[in-house]
Amino acid sequence: MNDRTATPVTIIGLGLMGQALAGAFLKAGHPTTVWNRTAAKAEQLVAGGARLAPTVGDALQASPLTIVCVTDYGAVHELISENDLEGTTLINLTSGTSAQAREAAERGARYLDGAIMAIPPAIGTAEAVILLSGPHADFAEHEQALGVLGTVTYLGADPGLASLYDAAGLAMMWSVLNAWLQGTALLRTAGVDAATFAPFAREIATGVAGWLPGYAEQVDRGAFPAEVSALETDARAMAHLVEESEAAGVNAELPRLIKTLADRAIAAGHGGEQYPVLIEEFVTSRDG
Amino acid sequence: MNDRTATPVTIIGLGLMGQALAGAFLKAGHPTTVWNRTAAKAEQLVAGGARLAPTVGDALQASPLTIVCVTDYGAVHELISENDLEGTTLINLTSGTSAQAREAAERGARYLDGAIMAIPPAIGTAEAVILLSGPHADFAEHEQALGVLGTVTYLGADPGLASLYDAAGLAMMWSVLNAWLQGTALLRTAGVDAATFAPFAREIATGVAGWLPGYAEQVDRGAFPAEVSALETDARAMAHLVEESEAAGVNAELPRLIKTLADRAIAAGHGGEQYPVLIEEFVTSRDG
Ligand SMILES: NC(=O)c1ccc[n+]([C@@H]2O[C@H](COP(=O)([O-])OP(=O)(O)OC[C@H]3O[C@@H](n4cnc5c(N)ncnc54)[C@H](OP(=O)(O)O)[C@@H]3O)[C@@H](O)[C@H]2O)c1
Ligand SMILES: NC(=O)c1ccc[n+]([C@@H]2O[C@H](COP(=O)([O-])OP(=O)(O)OC[C@H]3O[C@@H](n4cnc5c(N)ncnc54)[C@H](OP(=O)(O)O)[C@@H]3O)[C@@H](O)[C@H]2O)c1
Repeated sequence: MNDRTATPVTIIGLGLMGQALAGAFLKAGHPTTVWNRTAAKAEQLVAGGARLAPTVGDALQASPLTIVCVTDYGAVHELISENDLEGTTLINLTSGTSAQAREAAERGARYLDGAIMAIPPAIGTAEAVILLSGPHADFAEHEQALGVLGTVTYLGADPGLASLYDAAGLAMMWSVLNAWLQGTALLRTAGVDAATFAPFAREIATGVAGWLPGYAEQVDRGAFPAEVSALETDARAMAHLVEESEAAGVNAELPRLIKTLADRAIAAGHGGEQYPVLIEEFVTSRDG
Repeated sequence: MNDRTATPVTIIGLGLMGQALAGAFLKAGHPTTVWNRTAAKAEQLVAGGARLAPTVGDALQASPLTIVCVTDYGAVHELISENDLEGTTLINLTSGTSAQAREAAERGARYLDGAIMAIPPAIGTAEAVILLSGPHADFAEHEQALGVLGTVTYLGADPGLASLYDAAGLAMMWSVLNAWLQGTALLRTAGVDAATFAPFAREIATGVAGWLPGYAEQVDRGAFPAEVSALETDARAMAHLVEESEAAGVNAELPRLIKTLADRAIAAGHGGEQYPVLIEEFVTSRDG
């Protein structure tokens, strides 16, 4: 299956995700070298045509493109730090924070930091979103090969960007899920099942998602005219949400946080402005 | 413009919303009677063909269908309680809680409780979502006339349902907006503007919204196999989100609440299950 024009690639770390990454390169015909602390995890890949490198150093020298995907940045540093990265571009798809990514990038090698917004079975399909950040030249050189893994998005030269977008995307994911669970819990008190409520929740989430680009313009301009409704009006309905949750005996922590954030903005004099004025509450640290 | 086949309607309360409601009926050719505490607000509608009733009692007797839309349920009770509702079906589109709606329905008249998920300028277009709950017969009788106002959805016989769906829908709206603001604040620390981040946030929100019907089946079955990922894995990424927010000096209250909810479910032994198992945390009251 190997294709002479396909870039040789190395995958270091063969957990659930590393195996999926290596499998996608093999399937696409890339000469694939693999290494894992526990060598047994390479068996299936070797049977599929991968070469098992005896050491991390050997793995790094085998290909111009190396992907590392292990548990955390501590493991990355243990594996890579005493090895020579001269001949390869390192793409670190291990999850971490932007600070860890920036620190790892400071070693000076050709380095891109990435985040995988997908589960292992999605790797190799367009559904797998892979975020990358770091020097554009390093991305451009390997863009085609990386495209084998899924929908690859280059975010910019700051190597911390992939982790930041990842965290922000996950915050959105959990927030949609939590709001849906809040509504599901509320509706359950009236005998409505989750399946009945879900399409309604989906419609609202999708509708509001569509407002974001327009609201973003208000944030970038720093001007929040109440074109649609004023924060004060929202706050009255927030009080109903809190009351409704408390009266129904369901968890009111999320409703209370929603209301607290708006109340602070109103106390700061923004009651007549539109929702995105709350950006001021988010850019400010609030400890405990 | 009046149409002999169109049901006569009465609108009580001519604030921003009541004026929009009355305007939509007038435009659709319904004989329209209006009343407002401050009579001057009826002027434009009267010029457009509406009849101004001298008293609330007269307004209620003028039409088989009466809509009341005032500030709150207290005002509704003041206006309606001593008046005869024999000849009309009352549709209360005033915002409130499900408890207030159920209490109002107990008066025994033909009564539907509703919630308007729209702003006044949208009234009369399909974009205006109007939720209604109460006896189905009362809805069926006036379904056609009410359709003039927008996309009318009947939710069931329990008059509290419209308020509950409204609260749940608003919780989703604010949650999508807050998660977007959290991400916007995080990305701003790396020099990324809101307009650049917004389409990414929109994609995630829309994608996750699409999972809700499937996740709802898990909730209704009460079985949460980790088909996609386990809560423990989510919790590790939540720690990154909290750390990322704290390190960037942005508000970490939302990230901390997200993590607290998951940590509790993990402590209760659900770490190997999938996200919707958190429903257990939402159906339980947590005071302060
Ligand atoms: N799985 C997902 O759905 C998913 C989705 C997005 C992102 N990710 C990220 O991808 C990364 C890998 O996840 P995974 O699911 O593949 O995890 P996993 O199945 O637990 O595998 C962890 C891998 O890291 C290796 N490792 C850990 N500590 C090491 C050390 N000190 N030295 C050498 N190797 C070490 C393990 O080697 P051994 O085999 O020898 O233990 C194994 O190859 C994580 O950062 C995760 O957050 C995963
Ligand atoms: N505007 C929106 O975007 C929107 C969206 C969804 C739902 N709603 C809901 O629709 C309802 C009305 O909102 P609105 O925007 O029309 O509010 P508004 O412009 O402030 O108008 C309030 C109306 O209530 C009347 N009212 C208040 N207290 C009264 C009392 N004690 N006795 C008699 N009349 C009284 C006012 O009469 P006066 O004119 O004499 O003061 C006025 O007609 C509220 O429950 C609101 O939550 C509004």
